Amino acid sequence: MIMQRYYINKKNIFNSQIIINDSDYKHIVKVMRMKKKDKIICFDGEYTYLTEIIDITINEVILEILDKKIENNEIGIDVTIAHGLVRKEKQEEVVEKISTLGASKYVSVIMDYSNVKVSYDKIERKYERLRKIAKEASEQSHRQKVLDVLEIMSFDEFLNYRDFDLFLYASTNTSDDLGLKKIIQNFNQKKILILIGPEGGISIREESLLKKMGFLPVSFGKRILRTETAPTFFMSALIYEKEL
Amino acid sequence: MIMQRYYINKKNIFNSQIIINDSDYKHIVKVMRMKKKDKIICFDGEYTYLTEIIDITINEVILEILDKKIENNEIGIDVTIAHGLVRKEKQEEVVEKISTLGASKYVSVIMDYSNVKVSYDKIERKYERLRKIAKEASEQSHRQKVLDVLEIMSFDEFLNYRDFDLFLYASTNTSDDLGLKKIIQNFNQKKILILIGPEGGISIREESLLKKMGFLPVSFGKRILRTETAPTFFMSALIYEKEL
Repeated sequence: MIMQRYYINKKNIFNSQIIINDSDYKHIVKVMRMKKKDKIICFDGEYTYLTEIIDITINEVILEILDKKIENNEIGIDVTIAHGLVRKEKQEEVVEKISTLGASKYVSVIMDYSNVKVSYDKIERKYERLRKIAKEASEQSHRQKVLDVLEIMSFDEFLNYRDFDLFLYASTNTSDDLGLKKIIQNFNQKKILILIGPEGGISIREESLLKKMGFLPVSFGKRILRTETAPTFFMSALIYEKEL
Repeated sequence: MIMQRYYINKKNIFNSQIIINDSDYKHIVKVMRMKKKDKIICFDGEYTYLTEIIDITINEVILEILDKKIENNEIGIDVTIAHGLVRKEKQEEVVEKISTLGASKYVSVIMDYSNVKVSYDKIERKYERLRKIAKEASEQSHRQKVLDVLEIMSFDEFLNYRDFDLFLYASTNTSDDLGLKKIIQNFNQKKILILIGPEGGISIREESLLKKMGFLPVSFGKRILRTETAPTFFMSALIYEKEL
């Protein structure tokens, strides 16, 4: 049986103990029905802890740290997936997949062909849900870090988001493609930003702005991929090239 | 606007005309609300046809072939994804994804950790639905061929399924991994079979049988992928290596 893993905040560590008092409390006690002496893995983005349940109160699980070590299943490249705004279900799918594949950040960008309205009144709940999906995906995939879900951006804000070493966008026009393989093989820096358009793709206006800002077009093969499949393709290709 | 594409059977071609009288009839007439003179792309696994609607009867759409050419967006490698039996929603997700990524065949294999019962009374309807998903994915991704959904196999039947040039299985045990990259780079033949376990993974018993039959273990990186994500990873890696 594989041990359950929980991402915890460093502020919940007190000397040799870890206190769980958030939604993981319910998961440990009600869903997994764990008891005193059961073992749990916790991780905080830096260390991984082997722990044992020493007490369960009405709102806390108290864990004793038995062992502490540094694990590293991260890919060592900081990938931000910027995704033309699509509907919630597709965002959730992408956040889950790219989390398990080691991405660092996800951001929705309002683009010309985004056919989804932004409902700002429900937006906090939506981020909360996406962040929960990202956290659980990290736990299940044995990552040490949790994907950061950023707040939605306009296309102009996106163009001014510049703190990266490589700027890419997924292009269906293979004629001006520089070759993803060549680009990734030659990449030895740290931070990649890639934009993947919504269902309708990237408009001519947007494409010309992207090129002006130094974004390189890359193709993912001869077939047309869905907007929710393309991020998984990119992360898989990157892992294949840099980790296998 | 991108033209609609429909996969057709060669038997529906009559000299310079194509007759559509199956479920695509409804799609063309009711969903897309197309009219006389509208243009449609048809493909039959060999040729791609540019056609124009010349008549719509009560149960047929009659198309005139305007142009006929050979297109090829296939990856040129015949990939069979064998997947430990998982529940329907996950099968559908995998069939959709690997279809758009160019796979040739999909087969569910009943494995030790498959926690799904096979209900043989509903199985034909299930295949029908998976085949429909495969057909639509080919149409949308601009492939020329349609993924073949095979009938479910027992693990013993699977072990005797031998008409391939390379036999792989997804392994989470990275210590005996031979390296997917090295294997794919050296592969110059035609037909690959890869087995991906169900949620619970591949049992020790199964793994030892696989090794006896010459299957090579391959890892998809340091993180644990879900059973429904692994096939997309494999197809993406293959496309990256062989097509980009």
